Amino acid sequence: MDTTNNADFFVKMALMAWHSQNKYLSNLVDSLADEQLAAEIAPGRNTGTYLLGHLIAVSDAMLPVLGFGTTLYPEMEEVFITKPDKSGLPFPSATELKKRLATLNEALNAHFSATDTNGWLSRHTLVSPEDFAKEPHRNRLNVLLNRTAHMANHIGQMLLLKPPAAE
Amino acid sequence: MDTTNNADFFVKMALMAWHSQNKYLSNLVDSLADEQLAAEIAPGRNTGTYLLGHLIAVSDAMLPVLGFGTTLYPEMEEVFITKPDKSGLPFPSATELKKRLATLNEALNAHFSATDTNGWLSRHTLVSPEDFAKEPHRNRLNVLLNRTAHMANHIGQMLLLKPPAAE
Repeated sequence: MDTTNNADFFVKMALMAWHSQNKYLSNLVDSLADEQLAAEIAPGRNTGTYLLGHLIAVSDAMLPVLGFGTTLYPEMEEVFITKPDKSGLPFPSATELKKRLATLNEALNAHFSATDTNGWLSRHTLVSPEDFAKEPHRNRLNVLLNRTAHMANHIGQMLLLKPPAAE
Repeated sequence: MDTTNNADFFVKMALMAWHSQNKYLSNLVDSLADEQLAAEIAPGRNTGTYLLGHLIAVSDAMLPVLGFGTTLYPEMEEVFITKPDKSGLPFPSATELKKRLATLNEALNAHFSATDTNGWLSRHTLVSPEDFAKEPHRNRLNVLLNRTAHMANHIGQMLLLKPPAAE
């Protein structure tokens, strides 16, 4: 198989890495009772609910960052990105958060599937055309790689919501 | 800039993502006092020392997995991968672990720099030629992407070694 110049292949691999983390997150969240999700990952630290909301809000923000449209849950930015946990702002229920995670992933996947390799290599909306000309790696695919690492980062923390044996 | 068929560009992006996590890890470890690193990330969980050793051992194993040679610290596999934390097996000192992390990254980087795009797309040693023919994404670059996510996962946990404000 000659894949030397097959840039599509690399896009597929980056998407597989993204999907793999998303599946990991969904499975983890589904395996937790609501009380487990509501607990702190460690004494005095973020709750699982906050981290789930944070990951949804950050994924949601990918829609405008990648030029795919507006966020589905704009009110989540303040609660789960701008403000820290225990800000006093009300959280959606665990059931509602899980539903949003699924809805959002469906929306993102529809856009991802409709994006060709040229599309992935094009500029995202957080970088200016001038800066992009100098740093062409600041493209949509780079956002995907960064958000994959960000998700892995918080999944590592959310694993602490499970009993030690399952860590 | 026409990067449509520039597979080298994707390799560069994947390497940037890897280096970014490695830098994150080195900076985090350098910012911790030895007592902080030796602490548990949460009550009854892994210590920072074990997780650092684990990340070094997993990165070290990339040398044979990617066909670059043998591990530099073969004895670390049992202590930091096969066995869990608090196995009773002695750990190297924090200073020694930090030194190994730097040495290993230097060795890996030398191999990474000498690997061209074709090399990244070739089979790694954990997949058979038969399976690789059917699943060509199981290449060296995929190992790099997976290990980047694995590192991000544990960095998220090691961030808990810092006081809450710095989380």
